[in-house]
Amino acid sequence: MDFPPIREELRGLEPYGAPQLDVPVQLNTNENPYGPSEACADDIAASVREAALTLNRYPDREHVALREALAAYLSRDTVAAGFSITPEQVWAANGSNEVMLQLLQAFGGPGRTACSFAPTYSMYPEYARDTLTRWVTGHRAEDFSLDVDAARELIEAEQPSVVLLPSPNNPTGTALPPDAIEVLCKATGAYGGLLVVDEAYTEFRREGTPSALELLPTHRNLVVSRTMSKAFALAGGRLGYLAADPAILDAIRVVRLPYHLSSVTQAAALAALRHAPELLGKVDDLRRERDDVVTWLRAQGLEVADSDANFVLYGRFEDRHAHWEALLAHGVLVREVGPAGWLRVSIGTPEEMAAFRDATTAVLATPAGTLMDPATEEDA
Amino acid sequence: MDFPPIREELRGLEPYGAPQLDVPVQLNTNENPYGPSEACADDIAASVREAALTLNRYPDREHVALREALAAYLSRDTVAAGFSITPEQVWAANGSNEVMLQLLQAFGGPGRTACSFAPTYSMYPEYARDTLTRWVTGHRAEDFSLDVDAARELIEAEQPSVVLLPSPNNPTGTALPPDAIEVLCKATGAYGGLLVVDEAYTEFRREGTPSALELLPTHRNLVVSRTMSKAFALAGGRLGYLAADPAILDAIRVVRLPYHLSSVTQAAALAALRHAPELLGKVDDLRRERDDVVTWLRAQGLEVADSDANFVLYGRFEDRHAHWEALLAHGVLVREVGPAGWLRVSIGTPEEMAAFRDATTAVLATPAGTLMDPATEEDA
Repeated sequence: MDFPPIREELRGLEPYGAPQLDVPVQLNTNENPYGPSEACADDIAASVREAALTLNRYPDREHVALREALAAYLSRDTVAAGFSITPEQVWAANGSNEVMLQLLQAFGGPGRTACSFAPTYSMYPEYARDTLTRWVTGHRAEDFSLDVDAARELIEAEQPSVVLLPSPNNPTGTALPPDAIEVLCKATGAYGGLLVVDEAYTEFRREGTPSALELLPTHRNLVVSRTMSKAFALAGGRLGYLAADPAILDAIRVVRLPYHLSSVTQAAALAALRHAPELLGKVDDLRRERDDVVTWLRAQGLEVADSDANFVLYGRFEDRHAHWEALLAHGVLVREVGPAGWLRVSIGTPEEMAAFRDATTAVLATPAGTLMDPATEEDA
Repeated sequence: MDFPPIREELRGLEPYGAPQLDVPVQLNTNENPYGPSEACADDIAASVREAALTLNRYPDREHVALREALAAYLSRDTVAAGFSITPEQVWAANGSNEVMLQLLQAFGGPGRTACSFAPTYSMYPEYARDTLTRWVTGHRAEDFSLDVDAARELIEAEQPSVVLLPSPNNPTGTALPPDAIEVLCKATGAYGGLLVVDEAYTEFRREGTPSALELLPTHRNLVVSRTMSKAFALAGGRLGYLAADPAILDAIRVVRLPYHLSSVTQAAALAALRHAPELLGKVDDLRRERDDVVTWLRAQGLEVADSDANFVLYGRFEDRHAHWEALLAHGVLVREVGPAGWLRVSIGTPEEMAAFRDATTAVLATPAGTLMDPATEEDA
């Protein structure tokens, strides 16, 4: 073996992650631009201080208090449908990427298949790689919507034990219609597979789009994952969670590392949940800001994907890297991600979006602003 | 597939973890009985409060400030050997079990082998299972020491890419002599394997036993893992870390989940490290208490393994489960772990150890106190 004896399949791979650059306007990782208030920070600190006095003890492995608070929060989305989410249906981990890894550790593995539909979140294949799960990629339509019949056919042919389906999708912002989720729940359920609807950005969805949570009572093979990183403005707290049938949680318990969720994380998340009205209070502003930037970008002659999230995919540039670099030179950091020619911008404060518009206007007037010839063939 | 579609190998397995029971005297998970002081809790809260104001942003993926503080702390153990540990050699994760999982994700996997020497930490085979790494178990001598020649022979025959070797060993408390580490570093290095010395309990080692850290400059295939859970009294904070060649860290970066270590965890651990003199101040008391309980148990006619840790393995009972249950009825929770007939007790406060001695005295006078006939064959 060469030193160090890294697995052959990993040799030469780059670690996942956007560049962490010190730039005035950071619109690259879909963070909420509004930090917790002083009052919320005080409460987080007080909650952690109480936990700190017994930090010599291991945390509650079952994080019961946190699961109760998360269940109550999720139940806001199901009350209209006449039922509540119970703590027995809720499981949390260090970010929804740990939730996803645990799901594939329990339900993926050698001889198993997982799939999603590109363009989509670029961590998904890494969860599969790290759990030795075969990875299959379907494709979205030209407008990034999901062709449900094609998706169903792929699922029936490949029989993945886990289908990962974000709604809204990252990096395109596209939400799934509820009937699509229902069709794919049935298709996966027919052979015993799971459908995981990744609702990381769901709080930003437009009026009239329900959450997949409403389908939990009728589809026991449905898993709905969430995060406190986005609408909840708690990216630094690393708290992802899911709601699912308790039998699915029992399987996760076999593979989770014992005491995976620290007492400090549990205390901080509980305090943040008590401040939900404040932390979520900016969601409407961000949705308005998003709709405005979509309109503005289209007025500049750009293509823009419809978005139910706190980011917008736009393009298409002849040389997106040149455009990305030119924006960076103006102090605006966006994300070079998704299909060729497109860029993704996160929704920031009104001031940040003004800076983004100014920088974009300036760059569009240069060679780095050149748009792709619509007749050009591109690789998706 | 049955519902839920858990991997066949995991079906019917119980989640890892000691029972979390509400008992007056908890001596079952090797926690430090002394919690942080009010002043330390204040500082942890202040540190977290500062981080809380920007929790809408993702954490520092490279946790640079924390790695600097951990490197400075580790360098206390190497200053006598004339060198320092640098931040480029240090990597942290959510508990040393996440550190171990990352190591096996990067360096284990299908077609690879990992090994340790039983009786040892019962999570090790789970890391192997979860990363599809073949697991090989060698055996320790009757007194739980490592037969270095036999260990070397097994390593040369099996060529594991990762050898996991705790020092002191859990659940026996046995430390490794430094020449054993050196011999096994060479044996693994000869074919490109890694030797991971798990020093979770090292701060409790007896006088004259050096840390494996001293061997880092001469053996680039050596990894030394540590935790803040034990001597540092921060089990609830979930902070494990390692020191190794930077090339080993680069491989871990490929498999680590992005932003695996929250801003809150980083802030809390940094504050705790500033209080190292206080948090570590009880280590000498705990070592004395340990040596006293070893002496006392032997005086009761029990077998006791020599211990360099904050726990003691003792026995051997005809029916250890009956003995464990009888102690529990007296309000004392110890751990039913390790070879047949033995129990493990963590070192608590003087009051807790008095309660343990009283309960043990009472139980030894009952049928549940019956010792194993030394002539009896037992399964190891």
